[in-house]
Amino acid sequence: MSEPSRILHPGLRQKIMSADAAAALIEHGDHVGMSGFTGAGYPKAVPQALAKHIEQANQGGNKFRIGVWTGASTAPELDGALAKVGGIEMRLPYQSDPTCRARINAGEMDYIDIHLSHVAQFVWFGFLGKLNVAVVEVAGILEDGRLIPSSSIGNNKTWLDQADKVILEVNSAMPLGLEGMHDVYYGTERPPHRKPIPMTHPGDRIGEPYLHVDLSKVVAIVETHSLDRDTKFAAADENSQRIAGHILDFLAHEVKVGRLPPELLPLQSGVGNIANAVLAGLNQGPFENLTGYTEVLQDGMLEMLKSGKMVMASATALSLSRAGTKEFLDNLDFYRQRIVLRPQEISNHPELVRRLGVLSMNAMIEADIYGNVNSTHIMGTRIMNGIGGSGDFARNAYISFFVTPSTAKDGAISCIVPMVSHVDHTEHDVQILVTEQGLADLRGLAPRQRAQVVIEHCAHPDFRPALRDYVARAERSARGGHGGLHTPHLLDEALSWHSRFEREGRMLP
Amino acid sequence: MSEPSRILHPGLRQKIMSADAAAALIEHGDHVGMSGFTGAGYPKAVPQALAKHIEQANQGGNKFRIGVWTGASTAPELDGALAKVGGIEMRLPYQSDPTCRARINAGEMDYIDIHLSHVAQFVWFGFLGKLNVAVVEVAGILEDGRLIPSSSIGNNKTWLDQADKVILEVNSAMPLGLEGMHDVYYGTERPPHRKPIPMTHPGDRIGEPYLHVDLSKVVAIVETHSLDRDTKFAAADENSQRIAGHILDFLAHEVKVGRLPPELLPLQSGVGNIANAVLAGLNQGPFENLTGYTEVLQDGMLEMLKSGKMVMASATALSLSRAGTKEFLDNLDFYRQRIVLRPQEISNHPELVRRLGVLSMNAMIEADIYGNVNSTHIMGTRIMNGIGGSGDFARNAYISFFVTPSTAKDGAISCIVPMVSHVDHTEHDVQILVTEQGLADLRGLAPRQRAQVVIEHCAHPDFRPALRDYVARAERSARGGHGGLHTPHLLDEALSWHSRFEREGRMLP
Repeated sequence: MSEPSRILHPGLRQKIMSADAAAALIEHGDHVGMSGFTGAGYPKAVPQALAKHIEQANQGGNKFRIGVWTGASTAPELDGALAKVGGIEMRLPYQSDPTCRARINAGEMDYIDIHLSHVAQFVWFGFLGKLNVAVVEVAGILEDGRLIPSSSIGNNKTWLDQADKVILEVNSAMPLGLEGMHDVYYGTERPPHRKPIPMTHPGDRIGEPYLHVDLSKVVAIVETHSLDRDTKFAAADENSQRIAGHILDFLAHEVKVGRLPPELLPLQSGVGNIANAVLAGLNQGPFENLTGYTEVLQDGMLEMLKSGKMVMASATALSLSRAGTKEFLDNLDFYRQRIVLRPQEISNHPELVRRLGVLSMNAMIEADIYGNVNSTHIMGTRIMNGIGGSGDFARNAYISFFVTPSTAKDGAISCIVPMVSHVDHTEHDVQILVTEQGLADLRGLAPRQRAQVVIEHCAHPDFRPALRDYVARAERSARGGHGGLHTPHLLDEALSWHSRFEREGRMLP
Repeated sequence: MSEPSRILHPGLRQKIMSADAAAALIEHGDHVGMSGFTGAGYPKAVPQALAKHIEQANQGGNKFRIGVWTGASTAPELDGALAKVGGIEMRLPYQSDPTCRARINAGEMDYIDIHLSHVAQFVWFGFLGKLNVAVVEVAGILEDGRLIPSSSIGNNKTWLDQADKVILEVNSAMPLGLEGMHDVYYGTERPPHRKPIPMTHPGDRIGEPYLHVDLSKVVAIVETHSLDRDTKFAAADENSQRIAGHILDFLAHEVKVGRLPPELLPLQSGVGNIANAVLAGLNQGPFENLTGYTEVLQDGMLEMLKSGKMVMASATALSLSRAGTKEFLDNLDFYRQRIVLRPQEISNHPELVRRLGVLSMNAMIEADIYGNVNSTHIMGTRIMNGIGGSGDFARNAYISFFVTPSTAKDGAISCIVPMVSHVDHTEHDVQILVTEQGLADLRGLAPRQRAQVVIEHCAHPDFRPALRDYVARAERSARGGHGGLHTPHLLDEALSWHSRFEREGRMLP
């Protein structure tokens, strides 16, 4: 027996069509705002149908390329499919797809890497041009046309508001029990009409559970039945566990000396294994009544909600493994009381991150001895993913942590370098660096003091002598009149580790 | 006939003593929070007396060094006097004194450069250690012990709250008519107890006109009669006028296409001649009913208030020339209705900068072709002043502008370089770059597109061929398999312009 229709609005039922027919409404040169945030809630059918149209156009000698705007990263069915056929002229604000990445680094596709809290307002302000089409996945449509959001909200409110044409994918694989979990704040305005955002706790509901759309703009409804991509959730490796251990020790110490309350402060946790290891550690740790104020809710946080260690979590997306998804679906009523999903301009809002006093933990590619962090570029030139929300959180956090294993590529790369090859987070925004080797607390330290603790606490022992030697020679050079001793550097050598890696496949001779 | 006493509280009158006796209450190793923001409202007598004590101790072979925390830069009587005798162990969060700068770059003094909005909360959180003594200039003391602030507020609320001992300088040269101009917000809290800051317009008064202090902590009152240092206000040179012209054209265009309202949005303007030139241009320009939400109110903004072009300005300090001071004093009642002075955690608060939609204009040392900005370091190693509030404003602004002449040192230095030698503002936080050559609008551009407009609009023609050549060769190198085409760079050459300048005194051969 088939499920009753999820499209309760009679007028919109008239707009049901195939993905192929819907994709045909998208034209060359369009800016298309798609749903999707870290592999959650992206449209499953229209982008693939569009990729076919693009491929056919290309085979017919016609150019067909679009701008793809999303919440954050999506999945092979969206970024992968469109990038494969060369259909993306410009991509923003974040991606993590291998085909996209290869195209961007080959110069075949433009990519604008934007703080995730900036995207919606840049569109409202008109800074990114006109949004032509929105393609947004929802879990259902109410009789009055209001939309039940899917597993992420991201920029969907903005895409629906700003686009000329709206294509909705109604995904019947999304649990209807999601209804009521979302909190869409419609109180945002453009300056000078902005008001304080009335939130003082991560669990506050300040909006409504539905998305609105001007029904006259809806040009197509496509029915789908497809789960989000599976977000792999691996058991923590030894390095991740050691990093988590250093962070837990630090947090315990901060509570002990009165710089953090016993229930800590709302946790923001980046995506990936180290983040999950930290959360797993907290789940075994001494802290109770924790809260989360983050972008993406992963298995690690779900388990903390389940255990009761965490009482409430706010995010803009649910990015779960298959096992996590099953746990979530089996206990939807439990989780609906403990999870709030919000638009990303709210989940990442500087006003709220600062007010709530978020403890921000993000992965990085490399840090330098003075505490500058590179989150995005391999050897200074190749984009990996993007800055995502790390800048929204790090600058406004109560304490901002950046974490990485101390080495990469079997020890050929040191993740602590004399000078980072690209800066995403300046020394001013980085309080704590952590590797499996240890934790560097940079609060209240001047640059040369920072270099000392970064090298001795975070660098891998194989690289410490070379880093100490660099610092010593840079200071000697400054004392000899070449450069200053505030932030000593040897300009001819500062990027030589990266350059050697490009030439020889290792950072040190 | 002498003015009646400004110290109306009878108990505090008992604490009046000489600057010398007050300075004797400060000990080696103390952290001392001093008033002062951009040469306004700094203590005039105690720091100089303290410098003498330090000198005597040094002559007697005793170490005597303190930590000096302020609002921002001060004056020769404070930073200069203490640095001259080697009395500063560590300085934060901003300085611009030549003796300080020399000591820092010689490795004789530690300096922690902090976003100005972070300082107060870092002290509340306990991240910078214990504050032992506050030395704060005020304009007067009421009968009940409340304090009439001086020409700046800066971090004074925090110093008075947090210090164990408080020394007040009551400066009878400060006009009593300042009373009522300040707005000290006492609603700040540490997380998790923070509430929205109830401000929606630059002119809103949300606090009270006086500073509070626990009277039992006041150990000394020193009477002074001394004006703030004279902030030189030069007529705009040709480059500044051209930069101002580009910005005015841009603003007019944004209004025309509907991306800015006709009265613009609140202006934040950095310190210096270019900033004043922009304000002078606006004062002659077509925009009416402007507002200011800035750190430092200089002559340029005073003139706009006088002309009526600007209706209200908020700041944390008044930094005026002698002529500006006279104008201000002669018309205090007029200006008191149009100027609000606030603590710097409010004047620079990310929540408010984002809500109000500030147009942020800050000077820089150099920018690179991809839009990264260096605000602080000469050739990557020597500190100039500090990041100040530029990070608070740039990341949260409606539009963030960075400005500089295209060259320095008679053309030996290009202020547009392949890669900045130090990053304070990343490509993500820089929307508009301006030199006398032109304006680069980086909104919605990917890195290689940015390089194009930065070189062609902002670089000096003498340096454009070398910059174009760098980009072309970096792209070729990436196409040849060395590096990526997202942000092409030649790692061995990226900092070579700076390196050559250090060796040969010019960036190009």
